[in-house]
Amino acid sequence: MAGTATVFVQHTSCSLIIMENADPTARHDLERYFDRLVPENEPYFQHTTEGADDMPSHIRMVLTRTSEVIPIAESRMQLGTWQGIFLFEHRRASHRRRVVVTVIGE
Amino acid sequence: MAGTATVFVQHTSCSLIIMENADPTARHDLERYFDRLVPENEPYFQHTTEGADDMPSHIRMVLTRTSEVIPIAESRMQLGTWQGIFLFEHRRASHRRRVVVTVIGE
Amino acid sequence: MAGTATVFVQHTSCSLIIMENADPTARHDLERYFDRLVPENEPYFQHTTEGADDMPSHIRMVLTRTSEVIPIAESRMQLGTWQGIFLFEHRRASHRRRVVVTVIGE
Repeated sequence: MAGTATVFVQHTSCSLIIMENADPTARHDLERYFDRLVPENEPYFQHTTEGADDMPSHIRMVLTRTSEVIPIAESRMQLGTWQGIFLFEHRRASHRRRVVVTVIGE
Repeated sequence: MAGTATVFVQHTSCSLIIMENADPTARHDLERYFDRLVPENEPYFQHTTEGADDMPSHIRMVLTRTSEVIPIAESRMQLGTWQGIFLFEHRRASHRRRVVVTVIGE
Repeated sequence: MAGTATVFVQHTSCSLIIMENADPTARHDLERYFDRLVPENEPYFQHTTEGADDMPSHIRMVLTRTSEVIPIAESRMQLGTWQGIFLFEHRRASHRRRVVVTVIGE
């Protein structure tokens, strides 16, 4: 079977990213970087009724990805050695997240 | 019918994004954020002949997305409740924009 | 033949982007912008054993793209006039990079 797998997250306050999968400190540093890149409580924010982390979560989602398309060959996803697929949660409170996977090919 | 819809914008100075679709202030805040993240008239910019908003528009496009792939199930796009597909224009002047939609599946 | 071409790069320290393909200064400015947006040697970085350009390369990858999906019609990729597909290298040292192209359609 050859084709593609499309992974899609049905939300606007988290992302789906491909990231380095071996060293947890890489994810730690990524989160710290995004905390600085998209701060909370910007004085010009108007979309604030759901809390200080709401608007930054939408911006972080736009700056990253909602779907990933991964090639399939010989019935296996062709991820590189260091590539992992991660859900990148941008809200502080716990949320249930729905991910849809679609496989196309023959 | 199940498969995917691929939405693709044929330009390098606007983006196609999935964004919160309910509250217009979320889009307002997103635009203000990008105005600050990618300023015009950086002293090191060399690609300036088409105006001050030209190079920032390419950078904003690279930081966001040129295509979105949305799963289809039972003949409907499986967007989440709050997900909308938006063209994010980065130029000041009015432009005609071409979007190509490709549906794959059976 | 109509469908899509998916271009996917199997690495977490470079990106695959669609970018303005005519004026090399646009790519120059993009690189200078990313040098400033994601600096090296941030004091909070922990993922540093592979060198100062390692963690910034993962962040730049997450801020851009690992794959592009381009529509195909009449057996040709439907790129816009100014769109080119580029590998955006984020490491300083030379690396071999693997790109997988998957064509789907009929």
